[in-house]
This record gives sequence, C-alpha cells and structure tokens, in this order.
Amino acid sequence: MTEVPLDGFPERVRIVDVGARDGLQAWPDPVSTDVKIELINTLIAAGVPQLEVTSFVAPRAVPNMADAREVMAGIDRSRGAEMTALVPNARGAERAIEAGVDAMVVFLSASESHNQANVNCSRDKSLAAAAEIARMGQDADVPVYGAIATAFGCPFEGNVAIKDIVQVAKSYGDCGIAQLTLGDTTGMATPRLVQERCRTLATEVPAADIALHFHNTRGVGLACAYAGLQEGITRFEASIAGIGGCPFAPGATGNICTEDLVYMLQESGVATGINLDALIEVARRTEKALGQTLPGQVMKAGPRLRRYEREDVRSSSGSRA
Amino acid sequence: MTEVPLDGFPERVRIVDVGARDGLQAWPDPVSTDVKIELINTLIAAGVPQLEVTSFVAPRAVPNMADAREVMAGIDRSRGAEMTALVPNARGAERAIEAGVDAMVVFLSASESHNQANVNCSRDKSLAAAAEIARMGQDADVPVYGAIATAFGCPFEGNVAIKDIVQVAKSYGDCGIAQLTLGDTTGMATPRLVQERCRTLATEVPAADIALHFHNTRGVGLACAYAGLQEGITRFEASIAGIGGCPFAPGATGNICTEDLVYMLQESGVATGINLDALIEVARRTEKALGQTLPGQVMKAGPRLRRYEREDVRSSSGSRA
Repeated sequence: MTEVPLDGFPERVRIVDVGARDGLQAWPDPVSTDVKIELINTLIAAGVPQLEVTSFVAPRAVPNMADAREVMAGIDRSRGAEMTALVPNARGAERAIEAGVDAMVVFLSASESHNQANVNCSRDKSLAAAAEIARMGQDADVPVYGAIATAFGCPFEGNVAIKDIVQVAKSYGDCGIAQLTLGDTTGMATPRLVQERCRTLATEVPAADIALHFHNTRGVGLACAYAGLQEGITRFEASIAGIGGCPFAPGATGNICTEDLVYMLQESGVATGINLDALIEVARRTEKALGQTLPGQVMKAGPRLRRYEREDVRSSSGSRA
Repeated sequence: MTEVPLDGFPERVRIVDVGARDGLQAWPDPVSTDVKIELINTLIAAGVPQLEVTSFVAPRAVPNMADAREVMAGIDRSRGAEMTALVPNARGAERAIEAGVDAMVVFLSASESHNQANVNCSRDKSLAAAAEIARMGQDADVPVYGAIATAFGCPFEGNVAIKDIVQVAKSYGDCGIAQLTLGDTTGMATPRLVQERCRTLATEVPAADIALHFHNTRGVGLACAYAGLQEGITRFEASIAGIGGCPFAPGATGNICTEDLVYMLQESGVATGINLDALIEVARRTEKALGQTLPGQVMKAGPRLRRYEREDVRSSSGSRA
C-alpha cells in the first residue's frame, strides 16, 4: 500500500533534523553536552541523513550553544551523515571549519526588523557576512547553505512580500550559495504561502535548491509540508520530538516534529531511509532526558498498527464514533 | 490573497464541532451542564453551523453524557445551527427526539472487535438498531446520519479493508441513511487512506454523502483533512481546542482541533462562515473551564498577523533561522 508515492509527492525526501540546534538553542534550562551528543548519535543511528547540530555563535549570546566544538567532537561520523552548523560571522565560520562541520549554514531574515532583533544588525551587514563565510567555505572546501528567516511572515512586520524572498534568494545566489532553506521562524506559513513561494522561486531563481523549515506554532506545520511535497520539494527540516518552542508565544510549539513528519512520509510511500521505530525511541528518550512533555504525537501513540487488547481500553463504553 | 480556494480545495466547508460530545464523553472529571451549555452557545455565536452536542446513551455507561436532556434544553436555537446527538438504540432515539435534536447520529464500527468493545454487541445488532432508529427518525421527521467508527483502522484488528467500509456504507444506505461520517476513532488515518476511501466510496456508493472525522493522535490530522479537501469533501468534524484524548494512548491527543482547522481553511480561501477570533476566544475559555492545557495551537499563538514589539521576544539573540 505504501510503495508508490501519494499523487504529486516525490519518491524520496531528505530529512534534516535541527533539534540539537533550533530545538535546544533557546531551551530554558542548560542541556549537557552528553545529552546533545547522545541525541545526535542516536538520530544518526536511526538513519537521519543530515543534522544541524549546533550554532557557532557567541557563547554569551546563546549559552546552550557554547559547547559547539565539544558537541562536534563527540559525533559518530562513521555513517557519513552530513553535519551542519549555523554560523553568524567569520569568527563562527573559523570555529566551525576547525571543528570539522560538513557544511555551514548562514542566515538572513527576509524582514529588516527581524534581522535587527535576531542578530542586531542590518540585512545588508548580514549579507556581507554571508558572502565572507561563503568565500571561507570555498577556501576550506566546506559547502555553505543559506537560510532565509521569516520567509513566511515576520512577527514585527506581518506579511513578507514574495519579492523580498526572491531578492534574498538572488543575493545568496550572488554569493555562490544555491542550497537555501525557507524558514518559517514563528509559525506563520500556510499551505497557500508555501505554494506561492515555491512556485515563484522555481521560476525566478531556478538555480536555487529549496528546503522547507516549518514550525507547528499554529498547528498547520504538516499541512504546509504536504503543500511543499506537492510542489516537489525534497528537503525538509524538523526537530525530533518537536523540541523547542516559540520565543514569541509561551506554550506554543516550535519546529514540526521529525518523527511525525517521517510517519506521514512513510505512510505516503515517500522514502526517507529512516527507521521510524528507532526514531520514536530517540524521541521518547529525548523527552525523558529533557524532563518535559514534548509536542511529538507518534511517540505518544506508537506506530499506526500497534495492537491493543480489549482490557487496554481506558473506557470501553465511551461510545466512540 | 485568500479569496480563491487553494488548488483542488472546495469553496465552502461545513464545520461540525463535536467537542461537547466526542471531546467530553470520556473526560476524566465531571463537566457541569453549565460549562457544556456555555461551550455550545459560544460556538454557535462564533458561527459554527453544526454541533454534535451530546449522546443519548445510558448514563451509567457514560456519566459525562447523563445530562443530555438538560444540555439540549439550554442551547440557543435562535440562530438555526444544527444540533445533532449520538444515539445508540431506540431508547436513546426516543429521548433524543423528545429533547428536540435536529438530527440523530447512529454509529457502527467497521471492525467487529471494536464494535464489541465499544457497545458490547455485534455489528449486525448495531445495524439493526440503526435501522430501527432510522424508522423512528422518519416517523418523527428527524434526519438520521450514520457514523462509521474505525473507518481508517482498528486498534484491535489493525488495518480495516476498504471493502468493509463500502459494506457498512451500503448497509446504511439500505436503512435510508445517506449522510455518513468516516470516523478515525483512534488516529490511524493517513492521507493515502483518506484518498483511497473517498475515491472508492464515490464510485461504489455514489449516493453516500461523506463527512470526515479525524483524530490528531499521530500528528497528521490536518494533513488528512488536506487530503480530504483535495477529494472534494465539504464536511469535517473537529473538536474545539482539541478537547478529548485517546482511550488507548494516555497523553495522546484526540479529535483535530476546530480552530486550527478553521485557520487552515481560512488561509486557504475556503469559506466556513465562522469568526476565527471568536472561535479562538471560545477555545481559550474552554481550556480555562476544563482546567487543563488543551492541544489547540492557534489559541496559544494567536492569529497569524499578530504583531509583536521587539521587547516581547523571549530571547532576542537566539539566532533563529
């Protein structure tokens, strides 16, 4: 039943788990380096092909990413999974290259005010930094990818015009950066915006290779992924167990959940190379390690064909239709 | 931007809120009649056109539905929203008709073992009851709708063959019941199964008018709705704030969340006649009234274009890409 992809879906998707970076960067409590390494290595063992594992930012600014080098040093590289890290400036790029990342991710907000709030400088300055990092990457033979934050809306400015996304994508292209991620930083993406952005970029910046990064802050994260799959997108970022949150809305969820996305893909006949049972196990262990209920659903309910006995039912007479 | 429906989506969808019934029937604590009536009336005021408000089952079996008559008596009928109730047998139908429901919903599981576990009798016996209720409805001029439980899988038997769904749909048809709901009782629906079931029923039981009822137990509830919308389905059941749970998996969610679904529809240019802001307010009050964090996401994050000031940000230096 699941051999052929669902109508319009691609045959294979590359999952990028960003839990160790996007999920943990603003985690309210300190998370030990050991917990991060265990998380990353068990994700690799489950078959996740690419992970954004840390951020080479100033430790003072993001305390939970202060151990970037130590995290990198503890990762099992034997399986060939691609390890990327977020890099805001030349100093970060130096550290990232030294630590042996497989690729560096630079970032820039599509909206000026978010860029200012996020990294305290203008988009132009961020773009200049990206260009410098791109040159450093070229010299060191380390690929550089570009993330576009607030690609579906800005918490300060509201809607972000598609022309601004096209502009950033072209600017990245001018720096030699073609592998781009549209980041739904605060959960403002909708299926319609996904469709519009993917179609416009395919036409206007055909050299750009687009990945999608959704947050489930308003519940439609997997619906947005669905829309992206139908546009032929084959790279999606997600966070194991849905670790993370939204800095704007206490209690709201952050990144879409990796194992829920993989479950949807598996049930839609889209190959990911990931072992879902192993992924569920990682999600459960992560929840335990972080000591907090996390948003992931499949890890709570178990695999689709999990069987129950009649005695297992909480209320056998609830008349559930 | 949202005037025309997203490719393949219908122009208008009828939302059926089932929170007061499916959400509350197995709620661990007693819920007062006043809270239920307030919930229902505020949903009506927000523009919800149809609600499954209670269940005329034996009070001993489902204590939280013991006040079915009182709930019905307290509902504001002036706006013409359609009030339906679940009815398991002739005794329930008598009470429902007496209480003045606009329509009765009979139910039957597609899998024998779930029917046994749910109502302690065979599917044949449940079907005979449905036929009797259909006759009673005809005499009283009260429409009868049919729910098919475990329409996407059974927690005891696993997969449920499409031929079993077709069979139940035809049996309902033989009783004169054409308005059917495919119930994803324990969150086993997937986009592919939605597609398969909708297409097969359209061909093999063309007289059946299909509604979809999903649970978000494995995170893909709105993705299943997405698949259903692309099949042209125009009636969806959901529960305000995502009230409810899964009797099989403690901690897992139950019904998809009404306001999250309405948000997705609104952003996809599909009319529902519902005021989303009012719906969010109902969800928040419901969470407060029930005294427990509920799964709804939009109610936590707020409307999509909610604006923030820079000072609102939890961590302005999280480097969020």
